Amino acid sequence: MSASDNYATSTTATLAPRIITEADLEALELGAAVLGTGGGGNPYIGKLRTRELLRSGKKVKLISLHDLPDDALVVSVGGIGAPVVGIEKLEHGDECYQALKAVEAEVGKPISALIPAEIGGANSMEPMLTAAQAGLPVVDADGMGRAFPELQMCTFFIYGHKPAPAAIADDKGNKVVFREVIDMYWLERLARAVTVQMGAAAGYADAPMTAGYLKKYAIPNTVSQALNLGYAIQKARQEKRHPVEEVLRVERGKLVFEGKITDVRRELKGGFAVGKVDLEGFSKFQAEQASIDIQNENLIFWRGERAEVTVPDLIIMLDSDNGTPITTEVLRYGQRVAVLGLPCHSLLRSPEALEVIGPAAFGYDIPYEPLEDS
Amino acid sequence: MSASDNYATSTTATLAPRIITEADLEALELGAAVLGTGGGGNPYIGKLRTRELLRSGKKVKLISLHDLPDDALVVSVGGIGAPVVGIEKLEHGDECYQALKAVEAEVGKPISALIPAEIGGANSMEPMLTAAQAGLPVVDADGMGRAFPELQMCTFFIYGHKPAPAAIADDKGNKVVFREVIDMYWLERLARAVTVQMGAAAGYADAPMTAGYLKKYAIPNTVSQALNLGYAIQKARQEKRHPVEEVLRVERGKLVFEGKITDVRRELKGGFAVGKVDLEGFSKFQAEQASIDIQNENLIFWRGERAEVTVPDLIIMLDSDNGTPITTEVLRYGQRVAVLGLPCHSLLRSPEALEVIGPAAFGYDIPYEPLEDS
Repeated sequence: MSASDNYATSTTATLAPRIITEADLEALELGAAVLGTGGGGNPYIGKLRTRELLRSGKKVKLISLHDLPDDALVVSVGGIGAPVVGIEKLEHGDECYQALKAVEAEVGKPISALIPAEIGGANSMEPMLTAAQAGLPVVDADGMGRAFPELQMCTFFIYGHKPAPAAIADDKGNKVVFREVIDMYWLERLARAVTVQMGAAAGYADAPMTAGYLKKYAIPNTVSQALNLGYAIQKARQEKRHPVEEVLRVERGKLVFEGKITDVRRELKGGFAVGKVDLEGFSKFQAEQASIDIQNENLIFWRGERAEVTVPDLIIMLDSDNGTPITTEVLRYGQRVAVLGLPCHSLLRSPEALEVIGPAAFGYDIPYEPLEDS
Repeated sequence: MSASDNYATSTTATLAPRIITEADLEALELGAAVLGTGGGGNPYIGKLRTRELLRSGKKVKLISLHDLPDDALVVSVGGIGAPVVGIEKLEHGDECYQALKAVEAEVGKPISALIPAEIGGANSMEPMLTAAQAGLPVVDADGMGRAFPELQMCTFFIYGHKPAPAAIADDKGNKVVFREVIDMYWLERLARAVTVQMGAAAGYADAPMTAGYLKKYAIPNTVSQALNLGYAIQKARQEKRHPVEEVLRVERGKLVFEGKITDVRRELKGGFAVGKVDLEGFSKFQAEQASIDIQNENLIFWRGERAEVTVPDLIIMLDSDNGTPITTEVLRYGQRVAVLGLPCHSLLRSPEALEVIGPAAFGYDIPYEPLEDS
């Protein structure tokens, strides 16, 4: 491996090559929700759809990027919209596949594999569903190592991937191709405007990337990471061990708070779920106050007045009893939660990355202080 | 000519075939502003750009649809956005040409000619500019016989033209293709959302139509009509005759009001210029009160409380002294105006047309009463 190959720096080993099983889908759903840091949408519907396809005989293969020649084309597919909408507005189920076909027609070359742009939440599952529909493998990597609210907040774009031609398709049969866009911000801006018109939920396929590019700039082995996390929580539950402790055992994160939700403020703003959650500590955090700022995902963890964990590091809320990851759309008064901080991948900590996904990019006048590995 | 051929019912003879001259551009600018019924944007910049191209040796030929075989492909191009924005935000000048190239690539067949979707305002000139850039002729017809605020308010779509693939390009280099849209309302909705993001001004190219289709459903000879109107006003000015009377002589319209503007209320709402103008009558309308409702174009002419002329018939405001057409973005207190009513083409008066461009389509609970030919 070369020095510029990020697989060398991965803390998680890849499970690829692997034929995805029904059990894997369950583990992925759980693990992706953990990595979703409160957002990314709910993978549940996508899981059911993918499971149906697996039961009907379709196969999805998880592969390593190293299984692909450098010039092979890889496309990221996923859902775009507000997670709150995703609960009530069912997709047709082939939005991403339709968008993928539009992009493939646009470049006139075959696509070799799919990759999630974000491993957190629903967009971990959409590539599995689309892979089953298209007969393509899924690459064990992603562009965020978590979830973020906007398309451009992705290592693919941060490190210079050309954003066109990309496509969006909806459940009604509309298909929009972004043939030329000047940069990733314009893709996000135009795609978001179209998505809002489409009912705040649509499927996208981004411009094809080469496997060579992704070997440098994708966050490695994150599908495996999600699978491992999901299996760890399941195993802890079966063996009556504490799921939060089990998550801390398999990950490099640390427990930053445990408490009860005392207030939830949340609104839908320009297609985003924006809000704040207040927490009152218990057990070893007794009498402490904390809060978490949200923009689809958990952005900032405040201990009192101090921003202790910030994007791009992962702020994860788990049900403190059973380890169930708590997404922003189901937050409610009285929930007892464990808040975990996980250091993000080094690809998200470079100056060019922090410009796009650091606290300032979300409107905060707070410097990014990397969460240390525990 | 067949019975279904609308050229038989045209009140204006075609001037085609004709090589467009610089003088024609001046007359078209003036006549298109008259037919713009207050909206459609200002053709001035488009005229200057086209004139430069004519001076550099480019040729634009005005042809009759009958010069084209029925299977020839014709594309309508134009600007999309709010006219108020068009005053301050200069286009790059090749937006429509870029959109045309995107549509041509999409269908993989050569385009034979261009047609204005709306003869009123800036979109009379955009096809001339694009024609000079692309080396294509312009057809003597359009889809409105006037101006309307939305893409779908066009006979092409009203009578069943499939709205995709269409394209939009902006001055920054963004190019969006609407590869599949379920109907014309969705094209309008998605295109409008993209346009607002692009800064409320962009160039579009609609899905190609066959000349055979347009022979039935385009409003015939409207480029000639605009040229004739422009030349009539110019001639009246030169010969010191009254321009408003000259317009009434060459057209079938009637003078419905003359008065002074006493109030203008106008705001930019979702990309549209929306408002109301109050008028106080003089000369033979002395002591009468009237007003005109606006949504980019003049929608309803009220005499007191009575809606006397409504869309789709044409409500035209001319400067009562020199005949200059007054567009909604330059309306101001104290202007002395003549208000003309012109009956629209019969293609705009069918039940299916009125559903899209009648008073009810603009939110008015008013029946459409056709203005009679005078």
